[in-house]
Amino acid sequence: MRTVYVNGEYLPEDQAKVSVFDRGFLFADAVYEVTSVLDGKLISFPGHAARLQRSLTELEMASPVSDAELLEIHRELITRNDLTEGLIYLQVTRGAADRDFLYPAPETVPTLVLFTQAKPALEHSPMVQTGMKIVTIPDRRWGRRDIKTTQLLYPSMGKMEARARGADDAWMVEDGAVTEGTSNNAYIIKDGVIVTRHLGEEILHGITRKAVLAFAREAQMKVEERPFTVEEALSADEAFITSASSFVTPVVSIDGADIGTGRPGKVVARLREIYLDEMRKAGI
Amino acid sequence: MRTVYVNGEYLPEDQAKVSVFDRGFLFADAVYEVTSVLDGKLISFPGHAARLQRSLTELEMASPVSDAELLEIHRELITRNDLTEGLIYLQVTRGAADRDFLYPAPETVPTLVLFTQAKPALEHSPMVQTGMKIVTIPDRRWGRRDIKTTQLLYPSMGKMEARARGADDAWMVEDGAVTEGTSNNAYIIKDGVIVTRHLGEEILHGITRKAVLAFAREAQMKVEERPFTVEEALSADEAFITSASSFVTPVVSIDGADIGTGRPGKVVARLREIYLDEMRKAGI
Repeated sequence: MRTVYVNGEYLPEDQAKVSVFDRGFLFADAVYEVTSVLDGKLISFPGHAARLQRSLTELEMASPVSDAELLEIHRELITRNDLTEGLIYLQVTRGAADRDFLYPAPETVPTLVLFTQAKPALEHSPMVQTGMKIVTIPDRRWGRRDIKTTQLLYPSMGKMEARARGADDAWMVEDGAVTEGTSNNAYIIKDGVIVTRHLGEEILHGITRKAVLAFAREAQMKVEERPFTVEEALSADEAFITSASSFVTPVVSIDGADIGTGRPGKVVARLREIYLDEMRKAGI
Repeated sequence: MRTVYVNGEYLPEDQAKVSVFDRGFLFADAVYEVTSVLDGKLISFPGHAARLQRSLTELEMASPVSDAELLEIHRELITRNDLTEGLIYLQVTRGAADRDFLYPAPETVPTLVLFTQAKPALEHSPMVQTGMKIVTIPDRRWGRRDIKTTQLLYPSMGKMEARARGADDAWMVEDGAVTEGTSNNAYIIKDGVIVTRHLGEEILHGITRKAVLAFAREAQMKVEERPFTVEEALSADEAFITSASSFVTPVVSIDGADIGTGRPGKVVARLREIYLDEMRKAGI
C-alpha cells in the first residue's frame, strides 16, 4: 500500500482523504504538477516547482510550503514508496471552507496532497517503438490553459474519445490550428524544422517542451514556435508529443492518415535520446 | 455541527471526507445540483433530479442512487440538520481510482456527497430591495456549460472580479452576447417582453429559468429566447437573474450604468412573487 502525503502527514493510501468542503473538490479551485522519477531521481524538479508557483500566483492562491520543503516531501515519498521509476503527483487547493463562489478568508489553509505512481516501464513505453495514433477533436477547454488547474474533464473525455476511435490520444484544434494534446504538447517536423505552438493562454507551458526546444536549438536544429494546422501536420515528415511522463514520443498518424513513412522517425528518436540523457544527468 | 451525507453514511461535518484519489478532486469529473429549502420543503426537487440525471448521462457516468433514494437523503438531511430555510448541495463524481485521464473501470462506485447550508434570510435577500449591480466579463468557460460540472473556477474568479469592481456579480459575454451570470441565468425586459438566452451548450439549463418562463407565459407575458447584447441590456426597462438559491432577483446596473430607473422594477417584483407562491405550493 502506498504512503500518501496530505497536509503535513504521511498516511496509508486508504486513509488519504480531504474534506468534502475542499475547494478542490467543489470548485476545481486547485492546481497540480506531475514530476517524473527515473533511477529514484526527480526529473526537472526546479521547473515544476517554478510552474506551480506561477499557477498559484495567477490564481491568487497561497503557497502551502517553500520549494525546499516541497523537494523534501518529494524525496520522502520516493523513499517511503521505494520508487525508482514512476511519477509524483502534487496538488494544491485553496483549502476547505463552507461552499461559496467567493474565495474564502485569506487565512484559509491551502490543501497540499502528493502521491506516487510506480511505472516500472515509464522509460520503455511500447509507443516509442510503434508511435502514437492521434485523432483530432475541437478544443473546448476554458480560456486559461496556461494555468495548470484540475479542470481536466474535457481532456479526460478527449482521451476516451481517442480510445473509442481506435487511437492513443487526441490533439485539440481551435480556429483551424492545433493547440496541444490532452496531456502533452504537440509538434511536427518538416524539412528539419521543428514546429510547435507558441506559448500563450491557449496551451500549457510544458516543462518538457522548454527543455526539448532548448536541446534542439543547442543541436543546431531550427525551431518555429507558431500555430500549425492539421493539414500541415499531415504533410509533415515526423510528429511527436512531449510531457513530463512521456518525455518525447513519436506520433505516426492523425485521424487515420500516416505522417511521413507512418513509422517513428529519426529526428524524434534523436530528440528523445538527448532529452533523456540530459535529464538523467540533471536529476536530483 | 452539520450532519453531512457521504456514500451511504451520515457523518459529522468534520469527518465528511473523500479519497484524494476521487476523480471529483483530481479531474473535476463530477456534477452537482443545489436545491432550495423553504419552510422545510424542497423547491423543484423533480427538476433538479432530472437535470442531475441528464448531466450524468451526458458524461456516461453512473447514477449512484434512484430518484426516490435521493429524495429520501434530502429529507433525512433536512431533519437531521433542522433545516427550515437554506440549500442542499449534492455532488456525484465518477468515484475513486488510481489517477488516469482514461475513465476507471465501469464497476467503479460513484461518489455521492450531500450537505446542507442554512440560510435563514434566503427569501429575504437585501438584493431584492436594492437590486444587483452587475459587471460584464468575457465568457472563458469550457464549451459544455449545459452539463452542470464542478469546473467552477472561472465563475468563482468572475464573482471575485465583480466584488473587486464594486459590484455584486458578473454577466459573461461571448461573441457580443450575454450568456449568463456566474451562477444564474440572465434576463432583460423591454416594452413588456422578457428576453433571455436560448438553451444550448452555451448556458446552464436553469430549473428556475424553466419555471419562471412558464409562469410568465401563463401570465400572458411575451418571452423571447434569444441572445441579447450588453447594449440591448443597457437600454432595457428592467433586468434580473434567476437561480435555485436567488429565485428571481432584480438587476439595476451593468458596468456602472443604470438599467431603466436604476431601481428594481415592477415586472421583476411580480415574477418573483408568482415564482415563490407557486414554488411554495409545489414544495415537497
